[in-house]
Formats: sequence, C-alpha cells, structure tokens
Amino acid sequence: MSERPLNVGLIGGGGGAFIVQPHQRAIHFDGTRRVTVAALHPDPEVAQAEAAAWEYPLKGYDSYDDLIKQEAAKPLGERIDYALIVTPNHVHFDPAIKCVQAGIPVFCEKPLTLNIDEAKQLVDAVKEKNVPFAVSHTYLGHWTSRFARFIVKSGLLGDVRWVDSYYLQGWLAARTEDSGNAQAEWRVDPKKSGASLCGGDIGTHALMQLRYVTGLDVTRVQAHLETFVGGRSLDDHFTTYVELSNGGRGLVRASQIAIGHKNDLGIEINGTKGSLVWRQEFPEELTIRLPDQPDRTYFRGSVSANDGFLKDLPEELMAEPNIPPGHPEAFHDAFARLHRCFEQDVRAYNDGKPFECDGSKYANIDDGYMGMAFIQASVKSSQEGNVWVNMDC
Amino acid sequence: MSERPLNVGLIGGGGGAFIVQPHQRAIHFDGTRRVTVAALHPDPEVAQAEAAAWEYPLKGYDSYDDLIKQEAAKPLGERIDYALIVTPNHVHFDPAIKCVQAGIPVFCEKPLTLNIDEAKQLVDAVKEKNVPFAVSHTYLGHWTSRFARFIVKSGLLGDVRWVDSYYLQGWLAARTEDSGNAQAEWRVDPKKSGASLCGGDIGTHALMQLRYVTGLDVTRVQAHLETFVGGRSLDDHFTTYVELSNGGRGLVRASQIAIGHKNDLGIEINGTKGSLVWRQEFPEELTIRLPDQPDRTYFRGSVSANDGFLKDLPEELMAEPNIPPGHPEAFHDAFARLHRCFEQDVRAYNDGKPFECDGSKYANIDDGYMGMAFIQASVKSSQEGNVWVNMDC
Amino acid sequence: MSERPLNVGLIGGGGGAFIVQPHQRAIHFDGTRRVTVAALHPDPEVAQAEAAAWEYPLKGYDSYDDLIKQEAAKPLGERIDYALIVTPNHVHFDPAIKCVQAGIPVFCEKPLTLNIDEAKQLVDAVKEKNVPFAVSHTYLGHWTSRFARFIVKSGLLGDVRWVDSYYLQGWLAARTEDSGNAQAEWRVDPKKSGASLCGGDIGTHALMQLRYVTGLDVTRVQAHLETFVGGRSLDDHFTTYVELSNGGRGLVRASQIAIGHKNDLGIEINGTKGSLVWRQEFPEELTIRLPDQPDRTYFRGSVSANDGFLKDLPEELMAEPNIPPGHPEAFHDAFARLHRCFEQDVRAYNDGKPFECDGSKYANIDDGYMGMAFIQASVKSSQEGNVWVNMDC
Amino acid sequence: MSERPLNVGLIGGGGGAFIVQPHQRAIHFDGTRRVTVAALHPDPEVAQAEAAAWEYPLKGYDSYDDLIKQEAAKPLGERIDYALIVTPNHVHFDPAIKCVQAGIPVFCEKPLTLNIDEAKQLVDAVKEKNVPFAVSHTYLGHWTSRFARFIVKSGLLGDVRWVDSYYLQGWLAARTEDSGNAQAEWRVDPKKSGASLCGGDIGTHALMQLRYVTGLDVTRVQAHLETFVGGRSLDDHFTTYVELSNGGRGLVRASQIAIGHKNDLGIEINGTKGSLVWRQEFPEELTIRLPDQPDRTYFRGSVSANDGFLKDLPEELMAEPNIPPGHPEAFHDAFARLHRCFEQDVRAYNDGKPFECDGSKYANIDDGYMGMAFIQASVKSSQEGNVWVNMDC
Repeated sequence: MSERPLNVGLIGGGGGAFIVQPHQRAIHFDGTRRVTVAALHPDPEVAQAEAAAWEYPLKGYDSYDDLIKQEAAKPLGERIDYALIVTPNHVHFDPAIKCVQAGIPVFCEKPLTLNIDEAKQLVDAVKEKNVPFAVSHTYLGHWTSRFARFIVKSGLLGDVRWVDSYYLQGWLAARTEDSGNAQAEWRVDPKKSGASLCGGDIGTHALMQLRYVTGLDVTRVQAHLETFVGGRSLDDHFTTYVELSNGGRGLVRASQIAIGHKNDLGIEINGTKGSLVWRQEFPEELTIRLPDQPDRTYFRGSVSANDGFLKDLPEELMAEPNIPPGHPEAFHDAFARLHRCFEQDVRAYNDGKPFECDGSKYANIDDGYMGMAFIQASVKSSQEGNVWVNMDC
Repeated sequence: MSERPLNVGLIGGGGGAFIVQPHQRAIHFDGTRRVTVAALHPDPEVAQAEAAAWEYPLKGYDSYDDLIKQEAAKPLGERIDYALIVTPNHVHFDPAIKCVQAGIPVFCEKPLTLNIDEAKQLVDAVKEKNVPFAVSHTYLGHWTSRFARFIVKSGLLGDVRWVDSYYLQGWLAARTEDSGNAQAEWRVDPKKSGASLCGGDIGTHALMQLRYVTGLDVTRVQAHLETFVGGRSLDDHFTTYVELSNGGRGLVRASQIAIGHKNDLGIEINGTKGSLVWRQEFPEELTIRLPDQPDRTYFRGSVSANDGFLKDLPEELMAEPNIPPGHPEAFHDAFARLHRCFEQDVRAYNDGKPFECDGSKYANIDDGYMGMAFIQASVKSSQEGNVWVNMDC
Repeated sequence: MSERPLNVGLIGGGGGAFIVQPHQRAIHFDGTRRVTVAALHPDPEVAQAEAAAWEYPLKGYDSYDDLIKQEAAKPLGERIDYALIVTPNHVHFDPAIKCVQAGIPVFCEKPLTLNIDEAKQLVDAVKEKNVPFAVSHTYLGHWTSRFARFIVKSGLLGDVRWVDSYYLQGWLAARTEDSGNAQAEWRVDPKKSGASLCGGDIGTHALMQLRYVTGLDVTRVQAHLETFVGGRSLDDHFTTYVELSNGGRGLVRASQIAIGHKNDLGIEINGTKGSLVWRQEFPEELTIRLPDQPDRTYFRGSVSANDGFLKDLPEELMAEPNIPPGHPEAFHDAFARLHRCFEQDVRAYNDGKPFECDGSKYANIDDGYMGMAFIQASVKSSQEGNVWVNMDC
Repeated sequence: MSERPLNVGLIGGGGGAFIVQPHQRAIHFDGTRRVTVAALHPDPEVAQAEAAAWEYPLKGYDSYDDLIKQEAAKPLGERIDYALIVTPNHVHFDPAIKCVQAGIPVFCEKPLTLNIDEAKQLVDAVKEKNVPFAVSHTYLGHWTSRFARFIVKSGLLGDVRWVDSYYLQGWLAARTEDSGNAQAEWRVDPKKSGASLCGGDIGTHALMQLRYVTGLDVTRVQAHLETFVGGRSLDDHFTTYVELSNGGRGLVRASQIAIGHKNDLGIEINGTKGSLVWRQEFPEELTIRLPDQPDRTYFRGSVSANDGFLKDLPEELMAEPNIPPGHPEAFHDAFARLHRCFEQDVRAYNDGKPFECDGSKYANIDDGYMGMAFIQASVKSSQEGNVWVNMDC
C-alpha cells in the first residue's frame, strides 16, 4: 500500500537563497516527500510575504520558533515529519537544537554550527533525544561516491597511503561581496560564517568526502589559511597536510580564488594495490588504476558484478533506483538520494523504531562535529605558524 | 500568489517501465505539478493493483478509456490538467487522439505513432482542437541544447554546411530480447515498434536534435537500415545521408549494437564561419570552434553575455531557473525543463488562451510528424536499394 | 658490430614543403639513417640553390632523373639505399617507376599515383623487380595502431560488424588556395591532385587505417563527394558508406571544411563481442569496451600481457624501441617507426635477400593500389548519383 | 651555406640506460647534430664492447677522463662540440667540471649534482670559464611551456597568487628495486641519488616548471618527505608548501607511489585575472580560464596572434620549426627543441662569442643550482618537523 508523503518544513530559504532550490527539488523528486510549511525569513512580514508568493502553496510562519512550537504540537501525519535548515551558518544551532528538543528530525546545512562549542551541545542533544539528524554533505549522495566507498572497503586498492581531496572554486577571486551577492556578503563575515570562510564552506566537504570514501579519520593537521583578496578577514584559500588514522597522509585543500574552477570537488586515493580517481563535476564516472591493468573507467549504471574485480558488490548498491547508464545523474539526483535515505529513517522513527545511523547513507551528527573540529584545528595550526595540531585540540 | 499544482494523469507506465520514472521525477521536480491518477496497465486488475502499491497515493483507473472519460467530466482544478502517455509505440495513437478530442492536453512519448497515417490523423485532430500537445524529445530540454540553438541562430557559425547528428547505444548488441528485458521484447516486434527499431527509437532523437539546433529541415534521405543481430526483423543499426533545407548535407545515424556506447547522442555542426560540438552524456558543456580562436568550451551557468562573441543573448535563456555552474544538471533537469515549459502552456490553456507552440520550448505535434515522415522515407530508401527518397514521399 | 647508416635521397621537398620536414626527422631519428642527396625542385637552379642552403650538408642534383641515374651507378655503400618521394601527387609515378626499374628502393608519399592506370603499372614494376617499396601511411606507425591491429586479430572484439573511420580537418574551409598557401594551391588542382581532393588526400588515410586495423577489405562503396567552398572543381568533403569483405559495413569519411578539426583521424570498431576506439591526435591511448567491463583505456608503454584480456601478445610488439609510458610518443615517433621498419627490409635487400612485405609494418604497394581503386570507385559512385560501385569497377 | 653538423660525446648511457635514448634521438632529430664518441661505462672493457655494438658507428673511450682529455686536444671541427652527461646523479659533478675546465660545453642531466657543495663549485667553474652549460629539464622544451611562460609574462593572468606544480608517478609503488630494474636500484641508494629520491628525481622538475613558467622564485618551503614503501631510506613521496618571490604561495609536489600515474607533470596557475592549466602528458594543449570567458583551450600550431587576447606574441615563438596542428609533438620534440637551442649557443661559442643564457631557452647552471638548494631546504624542513626553511638555508 502507498504511504502518505512526508511533510517537510523549511527553516530559512527566503530572499533568493541558492541552496533552498536544490533541496526542494530533491524533496519533491520521488513524489513521497513534500514541503508544506516554512519560516523563510527572520522578519515576520517578509517571511509571510514570501510564503504567500511561493511557487506552490505553503503555510508561512512568522519565525522558526513559531514553526517549531506549532508543528510539534500537531499530531503525526499533520505536523512536519522533518525540518530542513538552510539558514546562514550562525543560525544553524538555535533552530536545530530546538527541533531536536521538540522531537522533530532535522536535515541541516553544513558546516554544522558556528563553532565547536555549539557543535558539542548539539551532538549531546541529538544523542540524548535520538532524533534523526542529517548534515547536508550533498556529494555523498552520488552513486559513484557510494561505489568509491565500496571499492576502498573491498580492499581492491590495498591500504590507503595517500589521499588528495580538494574543492576548488573561483567565485570569490574578486570582491564578489561588493557586487550585491547576498551569499558572498554573509560568507565573508566571521560573525555569520565562523572562523574560516573557505575551510568552513567547502574545505569541510573535501574532508567529508575523504572520510566517507576511505572510512578513515584525520588525526592531525598542518594548515595554511590564506587571504588573497584584500579587505577580507577570513581565508579564501585553504590547504591542510593531514595525517590519517591508519598512518596514511594526505591533502585536504580548497580554494575560492581559483578562477575557472566552478565547483571542482574531487578525490584521488593511492593505495598499496591501486588508485581511484573521482570528480564531482563528472559524477557518472569513477576510474580505478591497478598495476598490470589499463585504466578502468566505470560509469554509473553499467557496473557489473561479473567484471572479475568487484567482489561481493552489495545488492543494495546495485538496486538503488536509477536511470540507465548514459542518462546522466547529477547534482539533484545526489541530493535526492540523501533525502530518500533520510526519509526511510524518519519513517522508521515515526513508527517508533530507535534511530540508528552509521553515516553510510548520509552525513550524521558525528560527521558534522568532525567538520567543526577540523576547522578549529586548522585555524589554530595556521594562526600558530602552520604547526601540527591534533584534531582533538 | 501561489497557484495550485497541476494534476497529471499517467497513461501506461506500469510493469516496471523505465521511462515513467524520469517523467514522474520531472513532473514533481518543481513542486508545481503532481501525478494524481493513472491507468497503468491494459489489464484492469493489474492496473488497480499497481496503482494501490504505487510509491505515493494515486487514483487508479481500469483503463485509459475510463481515465479519459471520467477525468474529462470533472471540473477544472479537480480533473487532470494533462495526460502523460508512456505506453509502447503502438498504443500512442489511440489514447492521444481520445485525450485531444476530450480537450485534455497531452505529453506523449516518441515516436509519435506507429505509422504515418496515424500521425496525420493526430496532427489534424490537434490542430482542429488546438489542445496543448508535446512530444517527449527529452534532449531539447538541456540548457545547452537551447544555447546551441541560439548560437546557430545568432549567425556565429555562418551558414550550416554539414551536420553529423548521431545516437549510439550498445544495449541490443546481443539478443537482449531473449533475456527477459520487457522493453527489448516489444521494441524488436514490428507490430509494437513500427517499421523501424533503431531509427524509430533513437534515430528520431538524432533527427530532432538536428532540426532543433539548426532550425533546418531534412528534405531527402539516402538510408541504410542494417540488422546485425540474427533473428530480428527490424533494423538495429541505422544510417542516413541527408539533404538539408538550406542545401547543406549531413548524417543522421544511430546504432544499438555499438558496445560501450551507453546513450551517446551528440551533434556536430560545421558552418562557413565555425563549428559547434555537443554531447548529451556531458550535457553541461558546449564547444565552439572559430578560426583564429582556441577551442571555446562553455559551461552551463557560466556563460556570459560579455564574452565578445555572443550577441543579443536572450534574457529568457539566461533567466532559466538554474543551479550555479559546477553543480551539474543532467537527464532529470532536461526532462523537468520540458514539463515546466509545457506547464506554462497548459496554465494558459486553462485560462482560455489559444495554444501556440513554435517548437522552441519542446517538440510539438509537427515535430512528431516529421519524425514519422523521416522513418517512412528511410525505410523506403533502404528497401529500394539505398536510393534517394524525398521526405514527403 | 655497428653497421653504417643507410643513405637516403630526397626527391622533392624544396620550396618549404611541409611533409619533407617530418620525414627527415624520422630518417635521422635513430642515427642509423641519413639524408645524403636530394633533387629538391623541378627547376635545376632552384634545386641546387636550395641544396646549398640546406640545414645540413647535402649533395644537390639538378633533377630526379640525374639523381636516379647517377646514384644507381654508384656501388652499394656509396649510393643511396632508398629514395624518399615527397613531390605533389602528379609527380609520384615517374620518379617512383624509374627508381624501381633502377633497383632503388622507394618510400613514396600517398596517394600512390595520379590515377589507377599509373598505379597498375607501378604495381607491376614493383612486383617484377621485387624492390622494397613503402607508401607513406604515417598513422600505421603509431604503436597504438599496431596494438589495435593485434587486438582485432586476437578475436577480443569478435567479428567486426561496423567501422567508422574518419579523417577531419578544417584548413580548407575558406579559400586557402587564394592566400598563398602552396600546398593548398596544388591540392585543389585536378591535374596535380587527381580526381579527388579530400578523398585522395585524407580519405585514403581513413581507408588505410580501416584496412590495417581490421585486416578487412572494402568491397563496395556508395559515395558522396561534396564541394562546399565555391570555385573549386574537386571535393572538399567526402563520405562513403562501405561494405567490408566479411559482410560488415562502415563509413569511411573525410572533411577539409570541418573548422576546428586539426588532423582528426580516428577509428571506431564495433564487433560482436566488443568495441575499440582510437584517435590519432591522442596517439598514446586506445580504449576497449567490453560487455560487463568498465571502459579499458590502454596507454602505450604500460600495456601488460598479464591483464587477463590480451592473449598471446607478440613479444615483437612489446619489444619495439620505446620510451616509458607518460613520455608521450607522437607524430615523429610514428614516422620514425615506419622508416625503421623499412630500413630493416632495405638492409636485407642490400644483403641479397628477396623482399617480402605483408603490410604489417608499413603500407606496401598493394595498399597504395587499393587507395587508388577506392578513389576511382568513390568518384564514379558520386558522379553516377551516389549509387553502389564495386571496388574493382 | 649549410654548416657541418655538431659533434656530441656521450658520457654515460651504457647498460641499457633509459634517458640516453631520447637524448640521442633529440640530438639526431634535425640532421645538424650527431653523436660521434662515447664513454659509456665505468668499466673500460664494457665501455668499449658497448661502443662497438652501438646502433651506429661510434668511437668508444675507456673512460670519461680519456674522452675529455683527448677530445679537448683535437682542433675545433674534429673534436666534440659538446658533451652529454647521462650518468647517475653521483657521477654528474666530476665529468661536468672537467669538461667545463677543458672548455667543452656540457648538456647535463638533472639533478645537477649529488649535493649543494658540488653544485656551488660547478656554478663557480661555469661562470669563470663561461662555457655553455645546459641542465636537462626536458619539459621546458614543449612549445606549450614556452607559450605558458609568455602568457604569464604578458600579464593576461594578472599577478600570480597560487601555483600547483606536481609530478606524479607510480613506478616505485612496490619494491621495484628488487626486480632487477637498474634505474630503481641506484635511485633508492642515497650515495648515488643524493639526499632525496622523489624530490631530487622529479620534484626538481616540478620546481623548474614553476620557475620557468611563472618567472618567480621559491623563497621558503615547508616540506614533507614521506617513505611509503618499506625498506627504503629515501623519500618516495614529496610535498612542499612554498612561498614565492612575489608573495604568492603554492604547492610543489611529487610522488612515485601514485599507481596509475605514468609521468604526470602538470601545473596550474591562479592569478588575479585568470588561470592557466597545462599537463605534460597532453603537451599539445594549454587552457586559459578568464572571468566572463568560456574555457579557452589552445593547441600548438593553431595559436593565432589575432585572437584578441594574446598581445605582442613574439614572432620568434611562432616561427619555431613546427609541424602543423594535429600532427602532435611530444617528448622527443621537446627534447630536440632544447638541443636545438643549445646548438645555437654552442655554435656562437665556437665562433668566439661570449656565452649568455637567460634561461628562456633551456635550464641553465643557475636553474640547476636552485634545484639543489630546493632539495637541501626541503630535506632540512622535513627532518626538523616540517618547519619553514628558507631556500638559502
């Protein structure tokens, strides 16, 4: 029997914000989730006006406090099943912890919070209430990210020696913040963005991709936060040399001044037995390089368990609702896969089952916390002369 | 003020059909359209069982006849706003013409009908009733297809001399029809597929891409329909040398036995002043080649009207709801763009405005007809010894 | 013991001709061959002046007649060991047959002669005298061309169904012949170029690549010779649909009006078991596509006999003097490989051994003849309304 | 008037050494240089036996001491015009300084010497005697390297902010030194290789590419020399974060354990106005990325001074003896360009003109010294805990 679509509430997203658009498409993608309510803006009048003019009917709230309070009071089936938090970084913590305390599952944009102290409180709250909580690391949602994780885990590459995880953009190469770009404005402001601009915004994605695909943690960092564009107080270029929990090494690096790079997240892994290369801008492909073999480029949808190299390819991975190869998936498909997985956990939660999340389907609260710890350690390293700093500093 | 979402009815799509999935995602994508009813299968019991088990709640009809009759009887706002026809080729005509006669807009899979006679009747009906009608040529929906069309029209490439439009797949290189693949089974059957397998299924896409991007018609063809896999009565490989309405020449070619090609639709245009290259599997890119210039590779989202080469870039093109460059769009985004454009025409139709469609937003009934004429001329050419045959043969 | 370097005589090559430069580099490449004499120009004064100003010391002859007569009269070791003919097409036959009759081995530019009658005479002369004779189909000299030929022969791709062999350039898209380009001037002149410009100049390369890699012959053609640039009497665009000797089909196509294509020779083969893709502009790579396998991209120098797919990889192929992978080979390396192989046959001939050439190392006189037959059949097909014409018409 | 070819003497190169082969091809490439003598091996008997069996006639010397002494005693025109030193690293200094002192120009493999002290002595000797001296940084010889240098100098990219210069290989990912690979054996031996394996062998190339293309010096380094393969005493993976002389920053990094990378030298430059990307394995291409422009990919041979972006393109650069675009140049072409430029300086030296070399044509003795200083600073940084170390430490 068909089940009713889940109801989602937006917190933030007004004012022409970019990231709320792909989230909505991902929510609606499967027909099994829908946005029903929203607190779009800190100003109640703006919030209501935007809600009334939204592309589809939506109940507008004056504030996220109202939204949380009133929704939590409704019975299951009428209330929202989860909240999506797409506010600037400094307004993640407050609505997130309030949702959690009200028992409302949360899908939260990254970085998790403004600083590590907020992150700690939030981790504690989530664990205490055991409410489904996802951090929006979109790129885990690519089928090829899942496949890369499987390949490393399968041992095909041997032990990981070296990882180069990078995220390069060019959109802040000039003073974009002076040209009326709202996102640029708040991102360069330490009060809204946190202690690191480039590291916080996109370096955390590069870290997450490394951690997700390799299954390894970063234990120490030696960081260089650079500010190339005059008049900024935060980094617009970010490089860390890292130690991994298995003794391997790597680079986690990011840039917002690399003109010509649009959204160039990628990872290369060199193991004792082989290498793996993946780039987000070409998300249908993944190349494996093994000694004595030509380059092996896999395409989503045409991976075969019978190729003689992939052992015990999980049925679950292959069964993912997919379109055939050559009908490319991309950004919205990845986003939708995250919301689809979160939906399953929310439905189980609605049924009274305990929430369990090992981070294999989407980034969880621990992943969010590690992102904040990484920023804190990197900022400290850079400020103290690019010295080595432990992640639990 | 927000408007109610449009209601869409599915005709066909049960039994694990592939193409109904991307259509549903595209319909739901924006939150402004939703599937509400369906006649999923020719067997009423199956139709009802599948509807009851659908991923989201859906009213099931016993048959498309029932669906059309009952929906047409409902008032606007309650009835479906348009029907999506995703049945095999031989079941396009009947539901399509019945919808049209009932005043229900239609979004129909290609090829338009089983043969040219059906196509002629359908064209007449659509023109008489003036009901919104779209043919599902997905790949027009890529932003880069729109951009390619603009570039040719702008004169940047001069006059079109030569076009190579191709669509290469490998999924029928072996006897896929014997392995339980339902789509392969009906596609190799002339009663369900029509007079051409490869030409009808994908050659028509290559033709449409040529016609859409260049704005030219094919006037004559010299065709080779080959059957490489034993036991088939239809072509699995298709090549036409064509004359264009401006005196240019080209190839429109397709294959289903090209192992390794997944869904490789592409086009290259050589004009008197420059060339253009585009491939569907990398739908974010488009390369222009001009004398005295290096290769110029544009990426969706980072095209600038100030590059000194693009004159009078339409605001409408640039304003399309988009995600930033590097957050790649792909198959579902193209599909969604078609439904989004069709939605606009359906809303106008609901408001009593006359339907006008010049084919610039999605393929219209005339485009569907040209596809059928192309198949007929190609089959005739091939059967008569690969001679030249006029399109209006 | 080291052997003396072979002596090579140039016939043609003065006046800034392009192709004589890479030939000289290829001759000198290994230190085992050197250019010693030359008849550079039809005008004796020019010929002597150019010889005197040559980049390195060179004995200049007034004419190729003088060169052939005087060199043939010298004892082995002092005379030239072979002649390189790099004149325009209409001056291939005369020096070539005179060399052959004088017992001087010949390395001749393609197309072999101006027309099929000359070609027949030359074939007869070469077979009667049994003198080493090579036709300069450069691209066979790429290691990856050799590798491609091995792969087809090994059966890895099954039976060849379809071949697309193409050679695309853009340098004649405008009236280059009016801008002082000497090569363009003679190439557009039927008296110097022969019955086909585009087909003769580069279509023959595409044909040769098909024949060399697949080991198949073309048996019938249906051709379209187009002239897109006004004022020309010869084709600048050339497309043939061909039948192969095993019953397969293919395209052999060429263009000189495809702006942006520099020297884009490439081939794709679709067999019953797999496909192969190769492009001359990226001559270090070759991609194999097999069902159930990801794309397998081989790089020259890192091919392993232990990859589980390559059976009985010939030692000879692997032993070729090579630089390690990633130190790319390119045009001059291919050219040098041809001269290196020809050197071996010339040394054997000098030692009195009978000349045997199966076309596996470089194009032989039969290959040259097939090129001329292909041009003749294609021209006839095109002139008679694009009808089917047998190769032995 | 033609001039006699220059005579070149080989020092080292016996025993199947890799690098002597491309050098010989590069020397012979143009017909204006030739190898005439050689001291191929430290063992006189081996040296003579190898010389006698060389691919072409060659005078063999018992030792490089003999070669230098006896050649220096011959008159100009009979003696060697320059020596090529292709011994292992620890045998660079002695023959190099002896040649210099004997007035014989030297083309020397990199790294210049075994350590910085030797390098200093050699610099002094070269400057005192003012003898032509080249260090074999092959990759400067690519036309696209020259073009990249021009582009940076022209100001098209603005000021250099960030450079990522890398050189990745995988051939030492396993214990290659145990498998009979002679090059691997000496490279892992500190007595023959110097204080850094990976940094010395290929990190110096990455440094040189950075210095050559940007015209900037590295002033400080923070280095990580890693040894991933057990049983080695030297680094097989090398990463430095560097400060540039204009205040910019960058990475100079290298690996020999990156399985699948063959010879992957590349550079990316991010300036205030644009970016540049180049890779050695695709040496015909160079991509420029500017705001408001699509990616601009230049191909050697089809660069036009009229493209509106390249100001004052030097005639000298465009006049370089080249083959047309699409007839790709590669490794040997780059090597030949270096020897061709060195030939010009040697001919001038032979004519008694003072030797002047600004490093724009090939790497000079100062470049060689900077490579040694870079290794020394990097080793020190890594040993002292990855601290910042000045280049003139």
